[in-house]
Amino acid sequence: MTLSPSSLTKVVAGIVPCDVRYTVEAQHHLDDLTKPQGSLGRLEAIAAQMYTIFQGKLPQPLRRGAYCFAADHGVAEEGVSAYPREVTAQMVLNCLSGGAGISVLARVNEAELTMVDVGVDAEFEEAPGFCREKVRRGSRNMHREAAMTQEELAAALEVGIHQAQRAKEKGQHLVAFGEVGIGNTTAASAIATALLKEPASILTGSGTGVDAAGKMRKIQIVEESVKLHFGALEETPDPLEVLRCVGGLEIAAMTGFVLGAAYHRMAVVCDGIISTSAAAVAYAIAPQVSGYLLAGHCSEEPGHRYLLNYIGLTPILNLGMRLGEGTGAVLAMPVIESSVRLFSEMATFSSAKVSTKSE
Amino acid sequence: MTLSPSSLTKVVAGIVPCDVRYTVEAQHHLDDLTKPQGSLGRLEAIAAQMYTIFQGKLPQPLRRGAYCFAADHGVAEEGVSAYPREVTAQMVLNCLSGGAGISVLARVNEAELTMVDVGVDAEFEEAPGFCREKVRRGSRNMHREAAMTQEELAAALEVGIHQAQRAKEKGQHLVAFGEVGIGNTTAASAIATALLKEPASILTGSGTGVDAAGKMRKIQIVEESVKLHFGALEETPDPLEVLRCVGGLEIAAMTGFVLGAAYHRMAVVCDGIISTSAAAVAYAIAPQVSGYLLAGHCSEEPGHRYLLNYIGLTPILNLGMRLGEGTGAVLAMPVIESSVRLFSEMATFSSAKVSTKSE
Repeated sequence: MTLSPSSLTKVVAGIVPCDVRYTVEAQHHLDDLTKPQGSLGRLEAIAAQMYTIFQGKLPQPLRRGAYCFAADHGVAEEGVSAYPREVTAQMVLNCLSGGAGISVLARVNEAELTMVDVGVDAEFEEAPGFCREKVRRGSRNMHREAAMTQEELAAALEVGIHQAQRAKEKGQHLVAFGEVGIGNTTAASAIATALLKEPASILTGSGTGVDAAGKMRKIQIVEESVKLHFGALEETPDPLEVLRCVGGLEIAAMTGFVLGAAYHRMAVVCDGIISTSAAAVAYAIAPQVSGYLLAGHCSEEPGHRYLLNYIGLTPILNLGMRLGEGTGAVLAMPVIESSVRLFSEMATFSSAKVSTKSE
Repeated sequence: MTLSPSSLTKVVAGIVPCDVRYTVEAQHHLDDLTKPQGSLGRLEAIAAQMYTIFQGKLPQPLRRGAYCFAADHGVAEEGVSAYPREVTAQMVLNCLSGGAGISVLARVNEAELTMVDVGVDAEFEEAPGFCREKVRRGSRNMHREAAMTQEELAAALEVGIHQAQRAKEKGQHLVAFGEVGIGNTTAASAIATALLKEPASILTGSGTGVDAAGKMRKIQIVEESVKLHFGALEETPDPLEVLRCVGGLEIAAMTGFVLGAAYHRMAVVCDGIISTSAAAVAYAIAPQVSGYLLAGHCSEEPGHRYLLNYIGLTPILNLGMRLGEGTGAVLAMPVIESSVRLFSEMATFSSAKVSTKSE
């Protein structure tokens, strides 16, 4: 991976804000379909957003991709996770052999899955759907130093931008993104704490399942890490510095992925707290990404809801999931597809000779 | 349609309660999959329910059907709907030509759609996916007399039982059901009022979109109809009498469909307030149907939530839909399919050599 810090600047500058005139046009069409006005609920807003992203030319078929970014975290050595660090590498292998949750859901929901090693502390053999883009064997321990150097951050962002470019080249229109990385709910909660300036205690959850004492310890690590790098948050810190100091390699790659996907005018579906923390950093850097973002679901992690609100996203599903990997994002794809197909394929009142409201 | 009142008795007596031992067995398997315990949220409960319905032998592929029952309502002449009565027939035609919401969603979500005319006040030509099972050209006006005679009720129940039998013969495992019928949210609200003994004012909504005055009128019609047939509801009325007096032909057919589907051990997905009112009558007659029922979504109609609670169902989707036709039920099918596939295809900790929790 060569460093090219100018790439980020170019991508951010090239993200075109979504044009609300398409949204208005979409709603006019939705109101003419053979159904009571508004009766498709959230599906109407989703269809209108998709119509807006694709500037009135909804692609058919809607090609789907899923990107899972994996990395280890130095902060895992502080005992913040219920699982040992080697589970990151094991889950990458499990995913490649088709047995992980995201493997199954990508298959069922017809999304082409790519597993990207941004920083796992292990080496893997080449495999279909696997990309080795390792920046470093794990982020540094944010509780002692910045999780990444400037160079590592730039390289990790590039990994994501590059994957978005690949998605575009594959002709994908709808892309989900998620992650694997023991310790990364701690990093996501730290990002949320620094960006949102809300107490770590309300933004930090049990992750993969730490007990009450483990959660207290995790909150303390988040608080101390944020304090180490940003003091008492008297000023709003620079979002890239937040990402660099308390983020992680796979989170930075996801931030790059969101920016790159918006740059290429794709619809991008967030998964849980970690992927949404990456989207929140992208939003802080370039607020116009929000028009390209959809929230697949709202997870059980308490900070997730706050991050979704920060970006202004309403989750499609609410199924109490907390698995990550992109699972909640991919699961929402049939709903997004359904909304687009209703928009394109339903009859209008005039074409179907259906009477309109009596009044 | 010949009358065979014994058929209902046979079906009700033949519904086998779901065996909770399969549910326990399913949860053991779910806890062994490569994910933190419980991290698939509601998907775990759905998978466990499906495993229980199919007695430990999850069918693959899971064949899907969608059944839309159509009929007119005499009560429509009381001005309870935003749309004129002829829209029922127009929507049947729209559905058959592929332009209705359910036509699109059944296509996208791979459910074979059957439109059943139980009592539309019009005649249709033969068409693929269309079944003429007309009992009468519209239910009677419940505000003046019982919506059906005993014979009409029996015939309409038979229509649904027969469709469930056909679904079984087609090899379907997962069936959604919904309806088309101007005036039928009024009937559904009246069923809810009589079964749940809650005030009509909290159970009645705007349906296809009546204004505030229209809604007040609708509440009054519901209150007066329930009072006409059941007085002050001092005693809990017989559920079949509720269905006969304030239901409708397509609602009775759906009640028969739920009972028949449970009898044949299929998973049955409810749609909105009307289909759920039919399921509530089935549940009141045979509480063991609840193990076979899933709630596709929670609609905007206020009474829907109460009916779901009455049966003990948690909706899968919450998208603010209120279209009916089976749309919300079919839209939940990919989530149900995903849960089953995760159950069957995810690796276990031992098979994938993934470390379990540290503790």
